[in-house]
Amino acid sequence: MHKEEICAWLERYRKGEATLEESVASLSRMSYEDIGFAQIDHHREMRQGFPEVIYAEGKTQEQTREIFLRLLSESKKSVMATRVPVEMAAYVREVVPEAVYDETARILYVRRDTEAVDETRRILVLTAGTSDIPVAREAALTAELMGNAVDVCFDVGVAGIHRLFAHEQEIRNANVIIVAAGMEGALASVVGGMTARPVIAVPTSVGYGASFHGLSALLAMLNSCAAGVAVMNIDNGYGAGVLASKINHTR
Amino acid sequence: MHKEEICAWLERYRKGEATLEESVASLSRMSYEDIGFAQIDHHREMRQGFPEVIYAEGKTQEQTREIFLRLLSESKKSVMATRVPVEMAAYVREVVPEAVYDETARILYVRRDTEAVDETRRILVLTAGTSDIPVAREAALTAELMGNAVDVCFDVGVAGIHRLFAHEQEIRNANVIIVAAGMEGALASVVGGMTARPVIAVPTSVGYGASFHGLSALLAMLNSCAAGVAVMNIDNGYGAGVLASKINHTR
Amino acid sequence: MHKEEICAWLERYRKGEATLEESVASLSRMSYEDIGFAQIDHHREMRQGFPEVIYAEGKTQEQTREIFLRLLSESKKSVMATRVPVEMAAYVREVVPEAVYDETARILYVRRDTEAVDETRRILVLTAGTSDIPVAREAALTAELMGNAVDVCFDVGVAGIHRLFAHEQEIRNANVIIVAAGMEGALASVVGGMTARPVIAVPTSVGYGASFHGLSALLAMLNSCAAGVAVMNIDNGYGAGVLASKINHTR
Amino acid sequence: MHKEEICAWLERYRKGEATLEESVASLSRMSYEDIGFAQIDHHREMRQGFPEVIYAEGKTQEQTREIFLRLLSESKKSVMATRVPVEMAAYVREVVPEAVYDETARILYVRRDTEAVDETRRILVLTAGTSDIPVAREAALTAELMGNAVDVCFDVGVAGIHRLFAHEQEIRNANVIIVAAGMEGALASVVGGMTARPVIAVPTSVGYGASFHGLSALLAMLNSCAAGVAVMNIDNGYGAGVLASKINHTR
Amino acid sequence: MHKEEICAWLERYRKGEATLEESVASLSRMSYEDIGFAQIDHHREMRQGFPEVIYAEGKTQEQTREIFLRLLSESKKSVMATRVPVEMAAYVREVVPEAVYDETARILYVRRDTEAVDETRRILVLTAGTSDIPVAREAALTAELMGNAVDVCFDVGVAGIHRLFAHEQEIRNANVIIVAAGMEGALASVVGGMTARPVIAVPTSVGYGASFHGLSALLAMLNSCAAGVAVMNIDNGYGAGVLASKINHTR
Amino acid sequence: MHKEEICAWLERYRKGEATLEESVASLSRMSYEDIGFAQIDHHREMRQGFPEVIYAEGKTQEQTREIFLRLLSESKKSVMATRVPVEMAAYVREVVPEAVYDETARILYVRRDTEAVDETRRILVLTAGTSDIPVAREAALTAELMGNAVDVCFDVGVAGIHRLFAHEQEIRNANVIIVAAGMEGALASVVGGMTARPVIAVPTSVGYGASFHGLSALLAMLNSCAAGVAVMNIDNGYGAGVLASKINHTR
Amino acid sequence: MHKEEICAWLERYRKGEATLEESVASLSRMSYEDIGFAQIDHHREMRQGFPEVIYAEGKTQEQTREIFLRLLSESKKSVMATRVPVEMAAYVREVVPEAVYDETARILYVRRDTEAVDETRRILVLTAGTSDIPVAREAALTAELMGNAVDVCFDVGVAGIHRLFAHEQEIRNANVIIVAAGMEGALASVVGGMTARPVIAVPTSVGYGASFHGLSALLAMLNSCAAGVAVMNIDNGYGAGVLASKINHTR
Amino acid sequence: MHKEEICAWLERYRKGEATLEESVASLSRMSYEDIGFAQIDHHREMRQGFPEVIYAEGKTQEQTREIFLRLLSESKKSVMATRVPVEMAAYVREVVPEAVYDETARILYVRRDTEAVDETRRILVLTAGTSDIPVAREAALTAELMGNAVDVCFDVGVAGIHRLFAHEQEIRNANVIIVAAGMEGALASVVGGMTARPVIAVPTSVGYGASFHGLSALLAMLNSCAAGVAVMNIDNGYGAGVLASKINHTR
Repeated sequence: MHKEEICAWLERYRKGEATLEESVASLSRMSYEDIGFAQIDHHREMRQGFPEVIYAEGKTQEQTREIFLRLLSESKKSVMATRVPVEMAAYVREVVPEAVYDETARILYVRRDTEAVDETRRILVLTAGTSDIPVAREAALTAELMGNAVDVCFDVGVAGIHRLFAHEQEIRNANVIIVAAGMEGALASVVGGMTARPVIAVPTSVGYGASFHGLSALLAMLNSCAAGVAVMNIDNGYGAGVLASKINHTR
Repeated sequence: MHKEEICAWLERYRKGEATLEESVASLSRMSYEDIGFAQIDHHREMRQGFPEVIYAEGKTQEQTREIFLRLLSESKKSVMATRVPVEMAAYVREVVPEAVYDETARILYVRRDTEAVDETRRILVLTAGTSDIPVAREAALTAELMGNAVDVCFDVGVAGIHRLFAHEQEIRNANVIIVAAGMEGALASVVGGMTARPVIAVPTSVGYGASFHGLSALLAMLNSCAAGVAVMNIDNGYGAGVLASKINHTR
Repeated sequence: MHKEEICAWLERYRKGEATLEESVASLSRMSYEDIGFAQIDHHREMRQGFPEVIYAEGKTQEQTREIFLRLLSESKKSVMATRVPVEMAAYVREVVPEAVYDETARILYVRRDTEAVDETRRILVLTAGTSDIPVAREAALTAELMGNAVDVCFDVGVAGIHRLFAHEQEIRNANVIIVAAGMEGALASVVGGMTARPVIAVPTSVGYGASFHGLSALLAMLNSCAAGVAVMNIDNGYGAGVLASKINHTR
Repeated sequence: MHKEEICAWLERYRKGEATLEESVASLSRMSYEDIGFAQIDHHREMRQGFPEVIYAEGKTQEQTREIFLRLLSESKKSVMATRVPVEMAAYVREVVPEAVYDETARILYVRRDTEAVDETRRILVLTAGTSDIPVAREAALTAELMGNAVDVCFDVGVAGIHRLFAHEQEIRNANVIIVAAGMEGALASVVGGMTARPVIAVPTSVGYGASFHGLSALLAMLNSCAAGVAVMNIDNGYGAGVLASKINHTR
Repeated sequence: MHKEEICAWLERYRKGEATLEESVASLSRMSYEDIGFAQIDHHREMRQGFPEVIYAEGKTQEQTREIFLRLLSESKKSVMATRVPVEMAAYVREVVPEAVYDETARILYVRRDTEAVDETRRILVLTAGTSDIPVAREAALTAELMGNAVDVCFDVGVAGIHRLFAHEQEIRNANVIIVAAGMEGALASVVGGMTARPVIAVPTSVGYGASFHGLSALLAMLNSCAAGVAVMNIDNGYGAGVLASKINHTR
Repeated sequence: MHKEEICAWLERYRKGEATLEESVASLSRMSYEDIGFAQIDHHREMRQGFPEVIYAEGKTQEQTREIFLRLLSESKKSVMATRVPVEMAAYVREVVPEAVYDETARILYVRRDTEAVDETRRILVLTAGTSDIPVAREAALTAELMGNAVDVCFDVGVAGIHRLFAHEQEIRNANVIIVAAGMEGALASVVGGMTARPVIAVPTSVGYGASFHGLSALLAMLNSCAAGVAVMNIDNGYGAGVLASKINHTR
Repeated sequence: MHKEEICAWLERYRKGEATLEESVASLSRMSYEDIGFAQIDHHREMRQGFPEVIYAEGKTQEQTREIFLRLLSESKKSVMATRVPVEMAAYVREVVPEAVYDETARILYVRRDTEAVDETRRILVLTAGTSDIPVAREAALTAELMGNAVDVCFDVGVAGIHRLFAHEQEIRNANVIIVAAGMEGALASVVGGMTARPVIAVPTSVGYGASFHGLSALLAMLNSCAAGVAVMNIDNGYGAGVLASKINHTR
Repeated sequence: MHKEEICAWLERYRKGEATLEESVASLSRMSYEDIGFAQIDHHREMRQGFPEVIYAEGKTQEQTREIFLRLLSESKKSVMATRVPVEMAAYVREVVPEAVYDETARILYVRRDTEAVDETRRILVLTAGTSDIPVAREAALTAELMGNAVDVCFDVGVAGIHRLFAHEQEIRNANVIIVAAGMEGALASVVGGMTARPVIAVPTSVGYGASFHGLSALLAMLNSCAAGVAVMNIDNGYGAGVLASKINHTR
């Protein structure tokens, strides 16, 4: 969206060459791009500080590639797509060879660092187990691409709680903490009780039987006895990364 | 069902050649066709204005083809089957080469326009995201085949709400609006608050984790704070198309 | 909201006495009234053809009375509040003695007929049992207050299906049909198969045990084998009345 | 289990050659056969009138074949296994070539008619749709193998209720009626209201979205407004066949 | 419904004094009585062998009394209402002093024995615990009023299974067995394995915590490893009584 | 149950004065007492080491008093009833003045210590919060009455985990540990990771919103990442006390 | 907890007057106060910046009063209790007359402002409807007592979305936004799309039928298409206030 | 973890060469091994009597192999991994050829018997059906590897309860009993009523339809009328084995 275009419209309206209705409609339309199957929200960067991120699940390879290309050309910031299967990544990379694919996080991205990262406001990503790592990586990489300093520490679940306490210093130093845990999700409560910083809890679908694909951890985190734990959707590492970044970029 | 046959039976009854019981049974039976695995409801067109539509899920290729052929020969209107896998479509088209298969909507149909379409009573189909398009297409194509003028507008979800408002005029012009949305399904409520026309909400199974395959959007739509939103089963684009058509054909 | 005020603002803007931002904000604010605990939406009548309806559940007596009075003075149409307990009705009627309270429907209203009712577009409200009557009355009264001709027919559930068929003619004559049913909610499907008109199904919380307060009927109606049945929230007679009225008022 | 063996033990006990404890244990053990992974209940025929039926799901091919062989040699009645995949059927038929496999019902059986069937006590199996046929076949074949006269009538669901009424005579003639229906399962209630005979309702997993794999039909059937409908587990045609047979064989 | 009236209509139709449509409508209407809030199904006795039973939950005292009186005068059989609160019973008894109220079963009835009871076809009602007795009484009294010989045996749950086996003889003698059990509902499976007769399982809402008001017993009974167990809605003793009576009255 | 009676029957059988069937039936019957609404299981003490415990919920005051008196006279061990409301306790104490009522645990009991308690096998009962105390007391008192040494420690939940670690020594010394916790139930997992002893987890209904009356804690405990945690029903302190006692009395 | 005491223990240990084990245990114990039914966590203020807050639900009046008094004397900051019924508030105020009770928020507190509030970091609390106000007030008051500048804006739900847009400026100015909404909870998604700041969503139990006491809004918020929305437990205004305060106090 | 290292650190601290903080951190860290994707808990053997067990689900082949090797070299006890697919077992066995793979139990292990097994404290594992055997084997093998004497008895479900009673003696002899059952899970209650020993109930996902992948059996076991039944997660044979071993190793 070019500023000149906006000014042109405002001028036209003031001169009476366009009705109020026409002007509002035109200005609105300028802020996104209609490519038939999608309305790319180029305005999002202005409203939210980061361009639209492609959620690839349910999109065809062609759709994802098309949107990826548009975002690359319209924005100066990093461009990323989440939940990208390996074949789709290859398909996009045919025309965007500079794109990097992180197989664990299932994120395809082109990194373009446009702002300095504040190294004192660190985001710490913890997992209860090894199996929670993919979700944690999605969170960590998202936060990094959005301009944050990120640390990780995996497999510190409560069944051997001394492993967690050994990381007490890192927990104290973090500005925001993300906890990814499946099964009974108890790690969020324990960490929530150890720090005055915001804790973002991501239930994972790790577990079986009565974990009901993450429901168990989700309910546990919503009912955390440690007050003020922010809960995300099951396996939603991306959302956790975004929220951590937003918190990190408050005044 | 031939009219003469009906008259013959009525005559026979009045003359005492048949008991009341025999007559009722015969007349009822005439209205459908028993082909063993199915009782084709040829009467439906009379009762509902459109012949029976084949729901292909759970039917074998042979069963679908057989019913398709019977409907083609018994009705003068368009014939359609929903939830048709690509192989089944090919199988039916071997003997019905004029049938068209819409792969996105998964509908196989033979179009036979028998009535003029009222262009002033337009049905508008909106989706929250790109991934909701298959459901929207099922709704749109169904409504078209049942004799309605249909417009579509995809990917106008509430996270970038200016995209929706840019379509305010189309929303105002529509006689009925179908909203297909997954995740939190909020689009139905926002649209419901913008218009005096009936809004039909179709929750889709798009989402992950605690969307529970569409349950999240379904509950949201049932609880819409915008009064009078009609809710359909999850992913039931077909039902939305039928309801929109029925509304469009009221007095 | 006075038209003059709107014009005044538009004029001011064109003359440059107000910025675009100021103008938009002012015009928006004019369309509702901020009374602290509520933002009364006086604009709704323009957008939706009927003023805001008060949903009394969760509101104090004072809040309901206050909003009722504001709506009475701002609109020329009927004013109504739903889910009103008997004491709250008495409390409001102290200052609005002309208000009528329907105890079965739990609706408090002041009727002001401002438009002629189209008697040929009749809405028919059916119930499966006697216990579903309160929900049906909420639907019927809502539709009446919104300017529709309404008929009712109670206790025609499927366990004695001849009772339903005796009303076949009324079903055929109706322009829209509302079905309120609890337990297994089968009535909606049977009626849906008998007519080409839109059927609005309202599950009620009538039943016990595995009816789970209406869940059983809700799921049944969402899965109706009769295509195009519009489903409402459990016990939401009000919503059914609104939708029926909206359908009745399409082009 | 040989009668002589039982007598021998009883004698031994009376003579004081065996303690009470030993005797009871031995007699109990005789009534089943321990083959390691299973304890075949040869006593069931005496208690229940039909030998143990093999539920093949979760069993290996070897286990099913082994049990099938033992039942064939121990009982004089028909032998059957349910939920048999096509490969497993072939595997068993290698050594039991006289076994018949019904692919729709997924039942493998050897029929041995040992009693006369009472043709006046007929069991009628109805389905709401074509997709419910596999469940209905499991029920019908089970009842037949257990010595009952069975009729079937498919695709008579409530959306075109005249198809059902055309079969009113058969419904009246049946001694027991089995109704297999998915989606909203309304057929059971309608049939339940038409007859004084016991109705056995089998919810099927046919449907999608909010049918939740048969939950919708299950709840509907449990809440049937027609009193005295017997409900089975989802897709449990076998159980329906057994219950119908038991009812047919009461005094 | 008077036979003469039926004949009169049939005659009128044959003579051409009435159209087919008029005749069918009239005959249908004759079979029930429209009293505004209810359509009393006087035809039910003909279809099902017992007049309509009043389900009092959700009905007002006035409604229940009115229907009770109508049934008393139209039928010659016993009349009964279920789920009757103690005050409603008193209210009805003011005008029907001969009515008896069973407080445990919460049934109000007037007994009129019109047929001989077959003492050899006994129905046995078992409960797992003392708290299940109200449901069992509803079942037993219902079956009795419908003309069956009924025995009861309470508190024979599986935690002390010798109590059950002491009643083995009664179980063997019964023609139909009703099992009312809450908590884990295991009694139905054990009894189901002991007899060749039909077993009707009624889950009760007895239990706490994860019994979820009877869901636990309901699911257990639906999944019974004893084949052919008929399951009722939670606490639905009435339905169990009706089904047992229907089974008892098959050919 | 008198030993002499048993011997008498055995003798009678050996002499041929009674058939096997008669003998087994008689011996079985001796082991419980039929008082109409209940079959008191006097045999339980022999099988399980403790007499039947009265679960008062769903029983009338009369029923509870009657069973309490029978147990007092038949057993020499402590007698107890759980879930006893305060009025029922008073009613029983009218005739059993020596009975003690613990209002927090809602247990009514007569203590009769018949065996020495093993002080080295201590049971430790922990709670996450103050609101979990009633459940913990039910567990502790049950275990005490069954002859165990019990310690308690309340309000040591994970949000301030140093409170728990201060009790590390007691945890190490315990032979069995009971953890009562609501909300997210994380305490069970943390304790489970600190000890080699069996941990019994009792979810409580403490919490609100998405705790769903204890479901949240229940699922968390079932999914504990600490292996071998035994889970009880929600609020089932009694069951936890019984299990702890059983574990304490293994070889 | 006095610093001198800590030093004394460290000294003792270094001199060998205490073992490591004794020292650790003593230091831990110092950080909380054992009053039998509760272990008051005086250490929490050091770890989390605010003293323990009393959750009154499930506590007796005596317990709440006792803990309130201890916190008042041990901390210099504000003291508060949530979910306090009106009678409990009166009971505590008998001995703490300076305590203030907010009846809408159900919070009892003594305000002691010990730090300057940063007026530029404002927290904005929005509600969808009037009925959501109690939850919003709990959030707002909590955040205020924890030292934050808080603004509120009620009844700006999406069914009349212009009411929300009129507050666009306040939304842009806020540092953190709390959204309390019941029914379909769509407000959180719309607000989430309008700002780059963290949005905290609190589902409320406002609604009926298929809102299932807040489940509908909870699922909707977890599935928000606006990325990075933090979700709280149903009706958990307190948690939202704490999280907002934590975010506001990051670096 | 070498004892010398611990002593060295304690010495260093006493001499003032290390601060308290440094010492605690170091000692903690020593107790586990950080290999990036996992923090192996070498301390677990000291706390719980058995080294960490690898839960292979969700881990890559490389991760499992790496941890397996580390555990083999750090512990002298048996090493085991659960939920191991056949290919992963082969992959690990390439470098650990002495490892044994039990395909039914899906456990990979190296057995190293370091303690004498107490043959008088036997663990008995029962299953209701043949399909429950894999879960039972996981339980049995786990208990064996942890140093217990284990007996098994399969297919003794309640539908043919004499099969169970034939094993009464083994049940009486066992010190702990594990019951694995799917469907309605009734076996746990019956066994729980037969013995004074602890019963561990493992619901299995065996069943279909309304068994909801084991939910039915899970709820049944939680609501067992036999007091003191310990419940495990669905299909969690491993947890049952661990708990049985812990009970067997109490004082």
